[in-house]
Amino acid sequence: MKRGVEQGEPPIFDDAFRARLDKLFEWRRDVRRFKPDKVASSLIEDLVRTASLAPSVGNSQPWRFVSVETLAAREAIIANFHACNAAALKSYEGERAALYAGLKLAGLCEAPVHLAVFCDHATEAGSGLGRKTMPEALDYSVVAAIHTFWLSARAKNLGVGWVSIIDPKDVCRTLNVPPAWKLIAYLCVGFPQEEHLDPELERHDWQAHLVENARLHRG
Amino acid sequence: MKRGVEQGEPPIFDDAFRARLDKLFEWRRDVRRFKPDKVASSLIEDLVRTASLAPSVGNSQPWRFVSVETLAAREAIIANFHACNAAALKSYEGERAALYAGLKLAGLCEAPVHLAVFCDHATEAGSGLGRKTMPEALDYSVVAAIHTFWLSARAKNLGVGWVSIIDPKDVCRTLNVPPAWKLIAYLCVGFPQEEHLDPELERHDWQAHLVENARLHRG
Repeated sequence: MKRGVEQGEPPIFDDAFRARLDKLFEWRRDVRRFKPDKVASSLIEDLVRTASLAPSVGNSQPWRFVSVETLAAREAIIANFHACNAAALKSYEGERAALYAGLKLAGLCEAPVHLAVFCDHATEAGSGLGRKTMPEALDYSVVAAIHTFWLSARAKNLGVGWVSIIDPKDVCRTLNVPPAWKLIAYLCVGFPQEEHLDPELERHDWQAHLVENARLHRG
Repeated sequence: MKRGVEQGEPPIFDDAFRARLDKLFEWRRDVRRFKPDKVASSLIEDLVRTASLAPSVGNSQPWRFVSVETLAAREAIIANFHACNAAALKSYEGERAALYAGLKLAGLCEAPVHLAVFCDHATEAGSGLGRKTMPEALDYSVVAAIHTFWLSARAKNLGVGWVSIIDPKDVCRTLNVPPAWKLIAYLCVGFPQEEHLDPELERHDWQAHLVENARLHRG
């Protein structure tokens, strides 16, 4: 060991913790229905610090979390979503279109917190390690941070919804971020109105749960 | 609520669980040094089932986990890594090159379990929902499943290492997967030789931890 990091004893994870962790994975959910209650800024800051414990390629830590707070920016983001969602609706027909139109696909108006999460493609951290054959691993590192944020948020009774029906370049323009920042996710965050075990899209008949996708293939 | 899923009571997460969860994030680590001990196949199957609780765009569940078990396939993967790693080493000079050459960047020879994780771009699950403006969200869903696998594995005392220094198309050829499957990650899995709080790349002076990346920007 070259560096003098105080290690302490490795934690012991017992059956009780593992059972609880499984509950966290089961009840995580993508939330679109939020209470109006405010969320303390310090709570979001804590969650971003926790998210930064995520794995990253070459230890590049390329995540950039932006809290979208001005009314002008939020209105532009909501307009962006509405335009993209209207275009998406046109691509469905008949019953699917009716089903799509009835889904709640964002919680942008109600969510007290909006977070835009970017990957900084200009970062020199990590010195390019692990990024030559699979450069997309840099973006994937940010997804790991987002999922860490999400799980930690749920353990603190906060709900997170990931909105991908949005024009990412338009989000970059709205927020005026550096040109090398790529949008990975736009998140709605707040206290959920209700808790569910099943995904909203299963509950509203969009997509069944696929048990066959949970199996291990062998090669 | 349209469908009759038995919900049960939402779980209550307390301070003790949250403190333990933070320990899990802190001690997760990317592992490259494995004990030779075998890992029960049922344990990997359980982890894949848990991973399948991850969020996915449009509830598309596009993850495909392949356990790489034949000697021929493993040898081809190891050769793939060595070729890519030698090419990567040539891109560094002087002290960085010496440092790079001294890093342990894979545990492919020692790890009892190899998992190739793919995204099925031909899946019709989710009916394309959420994938029009940000189609990359499909790949990101697989990353969320991988990170879920990783956290659950660590809670069961298993180590995971994500190898990105590999030619992804070559992996697809070696494993002869359907043409629409895209490699997202190649994982080494096994019981770790040692536990650390700090990342291997920090311990070996490749990359410092960047506290400034753990802060919340405002826009």
